[in-house]
Amino acid sequence: MTGKRWNSSILSDFATALFETAGLDTDKATTIAAALVEADMMGHTTHGMQLCAPYLKALKDGSMRREGSPEVLSDRGAVATWDGRRLPGVWLTARAVDQAVERAKLYGTASIAIRRSHHIACLAVFLERATREGCMVQITCSDPAVASVAPYGGTEPLFTPDPIAVGIPTSNDPILIDTSASITTNGMTGRLHGEGRKLPGMWVQDADGAASDDPGVLFTDPPGTILPIGGQEYGHKGYGLALMIEALTQGLSGHGRADPAEGWGASVHIQVCDPTAFSGRDAFNRQIDHIVSKCLANKPVPGSAPVRLPGQNAIQKRKDSKEKGVLLYPGIMEALQPWAQEYGITPPAP
Amino acid sequence: MTGKRWNSSILSDFATALFETAGLDTDKATTIAAALVEADMMGHTTHGMQLCAPYLKALKDGSMRREGSPEVLSDRGAVATWDGRRLPGVWLTARAVDQAVERAKLYGTASIAIRRSHHIACLAVFLERATREGCMVQITCSDPAVASVAPYGGTEPLFTPDPIAVGIPTSNDPILIDTSASITTNGMTGRLHGEGRKLPGMWVQDADGAASDDPGVLFTDPPGTILPIGGQEYGHKGYGLALMIEALTQGLSGHGRADPAEGWGASVHIQVCDPTAFSGRDAFNRQIDHIVSKCLANKPVPGSAPVRLPGQNAIQKRKDSKEKGVLLYPGIMEALQPWAQEYGITPPAP
Repeated sequence: MTGKRWNSSILSDFATALFETAGLDTDKATTIAAALVEADMMGHTTHGMQLCAPYLKALKDGSMRREGSPEVLSDRGAVATWDGRRLPGVWLTARAVDQAVERAKLYGTASIAIRRSHHIACLAVFLERATREGCMVQITCSDPAVASVAPYGGTEPLFTPDPIAVGIPTSNDPILIDTSASITTNGMTGRLHGEGRKLPGMWVQDADGAASDDPGVLFTDPPGTILPIGGQEYGHKGYGLALMIEALTQGLSGHGRADPAEGWGASVHIQVCDPTAFSGRDAFNRQIDHIVSKCLANKPVPGSAPVRLPGQNAIQKRKDSKEKGVLLYPGIMEALQPWAQEYGITPPAP
Repeated sequence: MTGKRWNSSILSDFATALFETAGLDTDKATTIAAALVEADMMGHTTHGMQLCAPYLKALKDGSMRREGSPEVLSDRGAVATWDGRRLPGVWLTARAVDQAVERAKLYGTASIAIRRSHHIACLAVFLERATREGCMVQITCSDPAVASVAPYGGTEPLFTPDPIAVGIPTSNDPILIDTSASITTNGMTGRLHGEGRKLPGMWVQDADGAASDDPGVLFTDPPGTILPIGGQEYGHKGYGLALMIEALTQGLSGHGRADPAEGWGASVHIQVCDPTAFSGRDAFNRQIDHIVSKCLANKPVPGSAPVRLPGQNAIQKRKDSKEKGVLLYPGIMEALQPWAQEYGITPPAP
């Protein structure tokens, strides 16, 4: 991650041009490009521009739909359900968060479930669409076509890592929580396996249920599994969260593991609360600002860095990337080279 | 936990009589008694009848209010905020779940925040009030007057264990998830410390931030802290959940750690979704029933018990307790002896 840096606007324009040439309209292309570049800027390097080439492939082979809008399956004001029709998940999720915020301002809370979205990339980049409107937001997703996590005590893949991201407004920078029901992700284990590296802890188990730090156990036949948070010691905690997330995303949207697999995609759930409808924005901020100050002032474990807030590092990295340019994980621009050539677009110089 | 068993109805009548004599009306007394006995029936022995004596003490010294109703601070249909006025938290929470279910049936989703509730006991016993109506429910709470968990990387107590309970309806028994943002609870560490026992893992840290399995480190001056889920390895996961739960409970209710401590109590948040407003109950059940069957059929880790669903054990224990009588943790009936004597109530024989 040392070395070359790209100007974020130029990088985003490059990705937009690729997506437009691949057949997306400007709204979709710019929304997706901006989200991928922002993920890299925030340090979420497995869910940024690394996804650009696979998305272009999916657009080309038709597994990601290029045109149209989601179908509204139900609309009850405070809640709605969409069929994403395999449209780009980044674009669908951005729209859904914006709509949920609008609805939460009317009803106090709002919830949108999306079935049959394509992949939605980095959940953390959507959170500020709500927090800058003073709202708290929770985004969960799962991919019913993919299984890499076993239920606690089991050995067969059933769940996706099942991410949950939460945005909490404060008087200053928002708190941006980006976590999951499992200890690690498909993206991270795949990358480390490709590089022949180990995980920082016993975060996976082999197909016989033996805990391991080797991501290679996920690539055997039958495969091992990623462990839920708590691992083999108290993984019932992550297992419970996985069931909650699968129910919110697949149960409410009405599309999931009970259906034939449709390929790489996502069932999504977005939930927004507007503090003004509860005790008011000032009362909310007074509590959250107090907790923030208590976290930051908390005496650190000796030898450790000061206590940080979730998202604090990412927001700082984004500022740095804006000023100094975006660092890309090795191999990303190389993977885009053939697409740039095919589409007649000149990749930007670092 | 071997030995004496009490008839659940007789035990509940005993607790009701104690609470009525302590000054609660019949509705409040029966609701609290039933919830405490049910917690014991389900095996949640730190949050069942063990709380009866401390609740009686709180009613006597006035720190738990005996009479009246919560004050409605805001009501926007799909959301409401109550001031619990330090009324019994079990009774407030039961009412709030029932109201949130009613509102979710109208709006699709509903959210109620409660400030200044007294302690709410075992979250899991409230879930079926929603699931038997076909709704999914999430209950979170925190006690702004108590701190025992440090933010990840810190050493000073700031959060409560911050429980989160989720009920998911299925075609059969509901899934009842009862977890928290920390690895273990105040109740469990207090009990094990009292008995001179260790924790099953490095679930706490001393005041200098050294991980430990000795709950005694929480009782030094300055005290150590309970670790967030993930422990010292990936405790940013539990830290993120703690911030989400503190924001939902204290931020939305508008009462929390920024205010002067009012004693043992809770800020509470209840969120209910009605699947009929999304893709319909049948579509929801089809997904959840499928996941349930895949969990139960998942090949277990060799030498381990079959994979269970969250709540499955508790529901079985409740059936057993109903048939064979309720097991009480040692010392509970002894602690109630002086109250029974003072209030002229004969404790039931086992």
